[in-house]
Amino acid sequence: MKPEFSLSEYLKDHKKLVDDALAGYFAEDEQEIRLISEAVRYSLLSGGKRIRPILCMAAAEAVGKKAEDVLAAACALEMIHTYSLIHDDLPAMDNDDYRRGRLTSHKAFGEDIAILAGDALLTEAFRILADREQMPKIPLQRLLVASREIAEAAGYRGMVGGQALDVRPQDKKGTLEVLYSLHRRKTGALLRASLRTGAILGGATKKALLNLSEYGERIGLAFQITDDILDVEGDPKLLGKETGSDERRGRTTFPGLLGLQASRERARDLIAEAVSFLTVFGGRATPLKAIARYIVDRRS
Amino acid sequence: MKPEFSLSEYLKDHKKLVDDALAGYFAEDEQEIRLISEAVRYSLLSGGKRIRPILCMAAAEAVGKKAEDVLAAACALEMIHTYSLIHDDLPAMDNDDYRRGRLTSHKAFGEDIAILAGDALLTEAFRILADREQMPKIPLQRLLVASREIAEAAGYRGMVGGQALDVRPQDKKGTLEVLYSLHRRKTGALLRASLRTGAILGGATKKALLNLSEYGERIGLAFQITDDILDVEGDPKLLGKETGSDERRGRTTFPGLLGLQASRERARDLIAEAVSFLTVFGGRATPLKAIARYIVDRRS
Repeated sequence: MKPEFSLSEYLKDHKKLVDDALAGYFAEDEQEIRLISEAVRYSLLSGGKRIRPILCMAAAEAVGKKAEDVLAAACALEMIHTYSLIHDDLPAMDNDDYRRGRLTSHKAFGEDIAILAGDALLTEAFRILADREQMPKIPLQRLLVASREIAEAAGYRGMVGGQALDVRPQDKKGTLEVLYSLHRRKTGALLRASLRTGAILGGATKKALLNLSEYGERIGLAFQITDDILDVEGDPKLLGKETGSDERRGRTTFPGLLGLQASRERARDLIAEAVSFLTVFGGRATPLKAIARYIVDRRS
Repeated sequence: MKPEFSLSEYLKDHKKLVDDALAGYFAEDEQEIRLISEAVRYSLLSGGKRIRPILCMAAAEAVGKKAEDVLAAACALEMIHTYSLIHDDLPAMDNDDYRRGRLTSHKAFGEDIAILAGDALLTEAFRILADREQMPKIPLQRLLVASREIAEAAGYRGMVGGQALDVRPQDKKGTLEVLYSLHRRKTGALLRASLRTGAILGGATKKALLNLSEYGERIGLAFQITDDILDVEGDPKLLGKETGSDERRGRTTFPGLLGLQASRERARDLIAEAVSFLTVFGGRATPLKAIARYIVDRRS
């Protein structure tokens, strides 16, 4: 990696790769499935940060593959993330009206179509992962391992389980332990799986995969702590949504348990730990190092 | 196949295989994910007919494999079917209170958990299909092809698209053409994929696969016509749900368009056509032949 590495350039370029690729999915002219395709594209192409796909591609690069070679898997990860947002926003869950500065799916299309749009995204993600032609440069066996990795992270032991736990806490006392465990499932599992997917598809050694997992666990938690902080002191305009929603909902949060200052420090400590696991990759991990810092410094 | 083949024995034995295998999934003791596991098991183990998994196993047998060798894929298909029922029953969709004679998932667990239980089932299905250890006797490449086959059938071009079309008809005039097309997606795609999955995993020749697809298309449609007929003249006790719901909802149905008598005839013609595609398999297709007839003769 050259010394003049620019994270903003890196993020811009990789986000563009993802955005362009995503625009190619659900591009249907067939009248019968136009409504559902439109609903999917409304949420999928609404300009997220694309952090999961970028982590996937950066992990592939860290083990010596090209971002483009794992782009389809990166898109699948963003589809799963988007489906989870659509379902989380539903009236029966968080009942949010806005997301990324626009009406949520059920507000724009109705609850029925929103549920189905989420279902469609989740299914398409696994279709892509099982489609040989989507990643012609990746050996077949790795596709299967990646698919399993993602399913485990997204399923009831991971993301879905975390969301269930969030809407129906099983432990009445909101301790730090309980909070860590919730977020390890709800957001941590898929972030970690994004890195592991890039690494697996890229043919990582066992040791490289382990290091990326440790990195992923820590940035996942730091990401959530930062989300909680932004909900307290972020700028609603930059965030594209109202702040203070955690407090209104009486949610247990890191700032609520630790205070703002200690939460910021915890996030920074986690990032420092995360970065320490990247040493083995040398210059190839420059983007991952910068991304780790970006995760706690971001304003949205 | 011996001449004294008994369909009821065959269905009983194969249903038991599936029921026993399904009971092994989502069997969690971990407190944090117990609620979501319970919700999933409530719907998954509520005694369906297991038609999709049985079709999958029967297709594998027709091409010379053992039912047990594809059992995990059969379970994955039942999980996808069950998820679709949970989501279809939601208040934002069909708003049904009962299913298989019991409260629907959202009535028993609440809407939030019902949505997540569906999501968990869909994700677990693809985890199973990507898990090498679930079907050790099947070559790796076939697992990937089967996974793609199922994702295509279950996704926005298939089942999810059909459900979207059902809740939001894109064509105002309820013609037979429109109705065929709806059901080809909504129920036909997954039934057909169940057969194709068994055949693919079993190593079917191109010709065998094609014949099973043709058979599947026809029994899928006959299945739906029979469902429509049962909603008019079935026994609510045997069905485990009230009849007349199509009429109450003003749905376009086959009996509505064709009349009961012509619908019955159409279903029987389809079954006769379906069976004609089984000739190439000889005695190995005896179960599939009997299942085709059962589909139109069933009372529930």
